[in-house]
Amino acid sequence: MTAQVHICEVGPRDGLQNAHHLMPTEAKKTWIRALAAAGLREIEVGSFVPPKLIPAMADTGEIVSFAKTISGLTVVALAPNLKGFQRALEAGAHKVTFPVSASRKHSESNVRMTPEQMIEEVRKCAQLPHPGVEIEGAVSTAFGCTLQGEVPEDDVVRIAAALAEFCDCVALADTVGYANPAQIKRIFSRVRKEIGHKLEAAHLHNTRGLGLANALAAYEEGVRHFDSSMGGLGGCPFAPGASGNVITEDLVFMFESMGVRTGIELEKLFFARKTLIQGLPGEPIYGHTPDAGLPKGFRAAA
Amino acid sequence: MTAQVHICEVGPRDGLQNAHHLMPTEAKKTWIRALAAAGLREIEVGSFVPPKLIPAMADTGEIVSFAKTISGLTVVALAPNLKGFQRALEAGAHKVTFPVSASRKHSESNVRMTPEQMIEEVRKCAQLPHPGVEIEGAVSTAFGCTLQGEVPEDDVVRIAAALAEFCDCVALADTVGYANPAQIKRIFSRVRKEIGHKLEAAHLHNTRGLGLANALAAYEEGVRHFDSSMGGLGGCPFAPGASGNVITEDLVFMFESMGVRTGIELEKLFFARKTLIQGLPGEPIYGHTPDAGLPKGFRAAA
Repeated sequence: MTAQVHICEVGPRDGLQNAHHLMPTEAKKTWIRALAAAGLREIEVGSFVPPKLIPAMADTGEIVSFAKTISGLTVVALAPNLKGFQRALEAGAHKVTFPVSASRKHSESNVRMTPEQMIEEVRKCAQLPHPGVEIEGAVSTAFGCTLQGEVPEDDVVRIAAALAEFCDCVALADTVGYANPAQIKRIFSRVRKEIGHKLEAAHLHNTRGLGLANALAAYEEGVRHFDSSMGGLGGCPFAPGASGNVITEDLVFMFESMGVRTGIELEKLFFARKTLIQGLPGEPIYGHTPDAGLPKGFRAAA
Repeated sequence: MTAQVHICEVGPRDGLQNAHHLMPTEAKKTWIRALAAAGLREIEVGSFVPPKLIPAMADTGEIVSFAKTISGLTVVALAPNLKGFQRALEAGAHKVTFPVSASRKHSESNVRMTPEQMIEEVRKCAQLPHPGVEIEGAVSTAFGCTLQGEVPEDDVVRIAAALAEFCDCVALADTVGYANPAQIKRIFSRVRKEIGHKLEAAHLHNTRGLGLANALAAYEEGVRHFDSSMGGLGGCPFAPGASGNVITEDLVFMFESMGVRTGIELEKLFFARKTLIQGLPGEPIYGHTPDAGLPKGFRAAA
């Protein structure tokens, strides 16, 4: 049986939220359509945050409605609080992800709540009726924080365990690109011992170039769900020089060349990349594999 | 006991040989001095190829003489044939590395010899008196070739075994950045079974962004010697879009953050990077870690 992984494209949320340019709504739709056509089965399309705070996310409701018309696609939206969750439910998102920072300083700066208050906020949301809607608790700054520095591993395990009580799945996020492969294996392993199969995704950033190495480490530790961002979009306002999320194109290439199926066709992914470039002119778009091209005689995973 | 790895900086050879600009001899010396001061204990400083073919390497004799004045530094030079080896011996290199391509097409295009003829050329060199000089056989295009496509693994194993008969050590090189982590583990493991401890270095390129993931895979397979290039210099004339060798700064950061000692001080390495940038103005210089800076509270391996 061929090994396989599931990749969630977070570019339309994590990427556009941090981009220097605004992508028009119609261009977002074109990009998302092309991503789905390349084989992406899950896309985080936006964030229900106050439009005044993040104008790039003002059209998230419309984007969710559009993305739901694409057959077979799981449409994910981020919500930072109860109000965002209510908007996500109204818009009809299939899955809502909540960022819960393991760093006290980052949590207070980001959502004006302590980690404990944010856990309670997510609990409140989970207690609302939400038929058919999946809830993900994403432990952010799980591997370190630009404000706090080191984040105790015990805090990460404790928050993940609390979220697993009422979330359908839990992700661990290296929000600022501090993680290293040894740490990835250690923390994923510890959290898995606590919450088992509820531990799903690794959300990795490539800030110090370790994105793929960390993804490999997570894969070797048993992780099969990965977030990534086309063109390496994304980043963190607190990490100058950050180069964003792990790059979807390179992540797909790594797994496919290892014989691990992603369900994504690289040539079609490169086409989706063109729609991203067209929709966001002037924005730096990364990606080693599309720049270099596929190896001669390359075969995707069978 | 803390784990450790040995890193050989190949930028002054693999990097400058492929750079768009010429680095003046004095700037090379300044750079090499700064690299050694950062803790690099082995530097591939140049290549004894015909100066008409590669003008950037015309001063290799002088650079070898200079580098030998740095206490504790192993000075490596590349030689493509007997003539190059004789020049390396005259210059007094401590170690000479021979590229032996596993791809028939690449070998013929690169050194105008078949792999078998090149093995015989290296054998002839090894039979010359070379007191105290280490000979490395580097199996290039060991993971694929832009001209030939797939390179049979049996060819790699056979060439490595032949070289191990008369070389002090053998390296496997992903010359064009085709390797993936699964392949790295498989081929290093196969070659190690044939030649044991004579298998030393992994020479990896970052063409498709997998450089660090491949280095991690090699490390996990037991490899403790790595080639890398400051600023990700290097590349291959046959791989358009290639972004060169695995980046020294990021490789050192990855290992140190994992708790694996490199003997290299990152802050001093960043200073060496400045001398590279000054010596090669206008050249694209890569490196996620120096761009983003070290994580808050970062501790190197103890």
